[in-house]
Amino acid sequence: MPSKTVNPDLVTERQKATFNVEEFTTWWNDGEEKKEERRALEKEFLEDPELEDDMPVSYLSHKELYEHGIKKATLVAKKLRELQDQGRTSVDNYTAILGGSIGSAIIKEGNPMGVHFVMFLPTIMGQGTSEQQFEWLSKAWSCNIIGTYAQTELGHGTFIRGLETRADYDPKTEEFVLNTPTLSGYKWWPGGLGLTANYAVVIAQLYSKGQHHGIQPFIVQLRDEDTHMPLPGIDIGDIGTKLGMKSVNNGYLGFKNVRVPRKNMLMKNAQVLPDGTFVKSPSSVLTYGTMVFVRVVIIRDAAYRLAKAATIATRYSAVRRQSPIDPSEPEPQVIDHITQRLKLFPEICKAIIYKVAGDYIWNMYNHVTGDLEKGNLDRLPELHSLACVLKALSSSDTTNGIEVCRMSCGGHGYMDQSAFPTIYGLATAACTYEGENTVLYLQTSRYLLKAWSQALKGEPLVPSVAYLGDVAGKRITDFYFDGSLTDIVRAMEFVAANKIKVAYDHVEQRKAEGMSHEHAANYTGIELTQASAVGFFVL
Amino acid sequence: MPSKTVNPDLVTERQKATFNVEEFTTWWNDGEEKKEERRALEKEFLEDPELEDDMPVSYLSHKELYEHGIKKATLVAKKLRELQDQGRTSVDNYTAILGGSIGSAIIKEGNPMGVHFVMFLPTIMGQGTSEQQFEWLSKAWSCNIIGTYAQTELGHGTFIRGLETRADYDPKTEEFVLNTPTLSGYKWWPGGLGLTANYAVVIAQLYSKGQHHGIQPFIVQLRDEDTHMPLPGIDIGDIGTKLGMKSVNNGYLGFKNVRVPRKNMLMKNAQVLPDGTFVKSPSSVLTYGTMVFVRVVIIRDAAYRLAKAATIATRYSAVRRQSPIDPSEPEPQVIDHITQRLKLFPEICKAIIYKVAGDYIWNMYNHVTGDLEKGNLDRLPELHSLACVLKALSSSDTTNGIEVCRMSCGGHGYMDQSAFPTIYGLATAACTYEGENTVLYLQTSRYLLKAWSQALKGEPLVPSVAYLGDVAGKRITDFYFDGSLTDIVRAMEFVAANKIKVAYDHVEQRKAEGMSHEHAANYTGIELTQASAVGFFVL
Repeated sequence: MPSKTVNPDLVTERQKATFNVEEFTTWWNDGEEKKEERRALEKEFLEDPELEDDMPVSYLSHKELYEHGIKKATLVAKKLRELQDQGRTSVDNYTAILGGSIGSAIIKEGNPMGVHFVMFLPTIMGQGTSEQQFEWLSKAWSCNIIGTYAQTELGHGTFIRGLETRADYDPKTEEFVLNTPTLSGYKWWPGGLGLTANYAVVIAQLYSKGQHHGIQPFIVQLRDEDTHMPLPGIDIGDIGTKLGMKSVNNGYLGFKNVRVPRKNMLMKNAQVLPDGTFVKSPSSVLTYGTMVFVRVVIIRDAAYRLAKAATIATRYSAVRRQSPIDPSEPEPQVIDHITQRLKLFPEICKAIIYKVAGDYIWNMYNHVTGDLEKGNLDRLPELHSLACVLKALSSSDTTNGIEVCRMSCGGHGYMDQSAFPTIYGLATAACTYEGENTVLYLQTSRYLLKAWSQALKGEPLVPSVAYLGDVAGKRITDFYFDGSLTDIVRAMEFVAANKIKVAYDHVEQRKAEGMSHEHAANYTGIELTQASAVGFFVL
Repeated sequence: MPSKTVNPDLVTERQKATFNVEEFTTWWNDGEEKKEERRALEKEFLEDPELEDDMPVSYLSHKELYEHGIKKATLVAKKLRELQDQGRTSVDNYTAILGGSIGSAIIKEGNPMGVHFVMFLPTIMGQGTSEQQFEWLSKAWSCNIIGTYAQTELGHGTFIRGLETRADYDPKTEEFVLNTPTLSGYKWWPGGLGLTANYAVVIAQLYSKGQHHGIQPFIVQLRDEDTHMPLPGIDIGDIGTKLGMKSVNNGYLGFKNVRVPRKNMLMKNAQVLPDGTFVKSPSSVLTYGTMVFVRVVIIRDAAYRLAKAATIATRYSAVRRQSPIDPSEPEPQVIDHITQRLKLFPEICKAIIYKVAGDYIWNMYNHVTGDLEKGNLDRLPELHSLACVLKALSSSDTTNGIEVCRMSCGGHGYMDQSAFPTIYGLATAACTYEGENTVLYLQTSRYLLKAWSQALKGEPLVPSVAYLGDVAGKRITDFYFDGSLTDIVRAMEFVAANKIKVAYDHVEQRKAEGMSHEHAANYTGIELTQASAVGFFVL
């Protein structure tokens, strides 16, 4: 039983707070109602003796970690269904409970059934027809089947069009035949695939009537529902141990002539008719929306993780006493060393900044989705670019910040009991998944170059980049600066615009020398990523 | 059995090298002889089937990891003794074999007997009298006893004078009585202490005849030599799991009236006579030398670890193909994306820079040690300051660089099989141990402030900071810059000198406002650490 006494140094520091802590908590939790909901959920999950760990998970072997994870995952799933049935939680809280703020406290190294709830179910809801939803959702919701989402391959992550897994339609039997042509075409990474899932949404290159129709999603049974043995033609297993998310049970998957019925292709958008005729999707805007949504969740999680690390480090710095400032004095709290504050305070600020940024883009996302439903796509590119760069910035900034916090605790931060290594393992993964950060910076830079060329021509600009119109063609000396906050922002706008200008000019210069736009952009990669990291001034 | 075929992309890249690879290897290994010695040792250790792992250690539990580590450690110790007896290796290679470049390949998560060889034995050699060396060294060398070095306590790391463990001399029995007065006084961290060691050099506050005589080293038996059970009054165990160095078996240790004979205090320097009279050490210069030596080893290891990470990432970037630069082209090697080169090439350079820096300070250390033996202490402060700042810079730069390399490999870098997580775990620890980096920056800044005040007065300066004399009192516009390398260095000297000047001025300003020097320096912590990181221009 942990001690309930609060360290006296902490009590003193808390009494010195110059703001209303409860008020801040309410704001951080997006209002009174959500704060109470979070507290109720935390009570429900974190005080449940069945969900307590017998020992810290860092002591477990890979095998034991998985067994631990799956045991807790089933308890969480059961509880989730009960709460939902009692109307005490909603789908809104799923990401938090399965992997976010609460989930990472329940199953510290990741829920092996997380992908089932967070990706398998939503994909069927979003991309399945009503019949498909009717067939699969109740089985999946009751956990009679457990699914995962299999897209990335050993050799193909960023460049989705390069996926190798094939689904060839056979009109004779009205089935798709799935194959993994090479080693690099093996599915690699899906959470829960290694040992847990018996179904998957598999993304594969569709071929029908000798024609290629791009990538499409297929529901594929992987394992026998009773024996859990892999079905014929399915080569499946655990990809191995990782830096973090150690109980997520990531797996690999290969197909050899695996046949699934025609109705297993998710056909809300594109379709294959019984004779093999392919019917195109009317629009790809909807999947675009999901991608933006996932990135918004990542920004919020990033802010949350850094806040957690900064809280641990700040508490440590109040409690730990070390090294007198003056040799004649006793050892002070380490937070009294100015260099320690230099480590902690910027990280606390960053956590709050990314929380605000996450809220901003969440609101924008809701507006733009509203517009989309009215057929207005105008702000979609702006939203997409902003989501890209904020996902990249927030994940890399907070990852670095977590390490600053960890190292501010000296050797104690190096111990697993500090929780830093686990937080870091979760946080750093976000720099790579859902769009590798450099790739995202480059995507945003394309938008910014276009905005810059519009600014140069005096064309109207969307709000996020409107500042480019104010400063394009002007020199910083055209403005009178008096050192106000507005002026500091204006100065930063010049810095940002100039970085975009440099990138734009270098691309144009290389094109003038005869390079294609794509190769010119590649050679300007350094300038483009730098421009991207500072190019938005909306918050 | 791993495949012996080399990936064709790698072969092509290697053929394109514009330098002589073997020549570079010879340089990196400090000459032909050492290169061959390293290769022979690698062959000896890495090709020994007895030392091969049954499975990757990342799959093991904490308990299994220790068992794995201690099993291999005994094999390594046996082999080391045999090689030494055959004259095929020397003490020079111990750090490499036990924990450095070769050791980290043999026992990937750290040797639980490393501290026995690298600290316990050398401490007895360096601080024991001839009689003490005679008594303990042969037992320790033959591994009839296994020792560790117990200095850091739960509440005391950086500030050594704050250690709480006491050794009270009892002249009646001619014994020291060891006690741990509080929880924060428990020894914490010594490698191998948890389960392996049965002896330790314990650093404790010496009291004799009612007088305090500072910290002194004592050889203390911890466990029964036959049963390995802790002796009466000894509270001992494993501190728990960590981010890295997972099989080093770090432990905790408390004493309750543990008595050791008077002759167990290491008395080459200070002594306690049978009646309790304390005889002071003639000089503390020797221990100072050891501290510098350890930091030099850290700089070399940092360079080596970054080189290893950069090598893995560069090979991956040659082999991995992803994302066409132009949509009409096939997927290129990722190294053809300029942004990938931006990640890799600076890290390769840094590894080489810190190798050169390590060599430089190693030579300086040997010169200064030679001077010391002739009684000349002049360059000791310069060497010490340089060792401090280079330890801090090399450990933090290479740690960050390893993560850049890891993330440049996308998801594959996140897997333990990439080796990055283990390299990172070893590397980041060096930011904290043997002088926490911020503390070291501050130590160096003290030296630089003094040098700056000498420069202002026109006094002569030692080589490492001679540039301050050239630029003190001058403006950058006093020089004509033509863009040459020399000019770039000169411009950097101005930057460095100006950072030192700012720190100096702020300290002086705060003193003028009535602060003590120590508090003024604390409030100037940010400027001081920044000045320190750029203040040396010697390489």
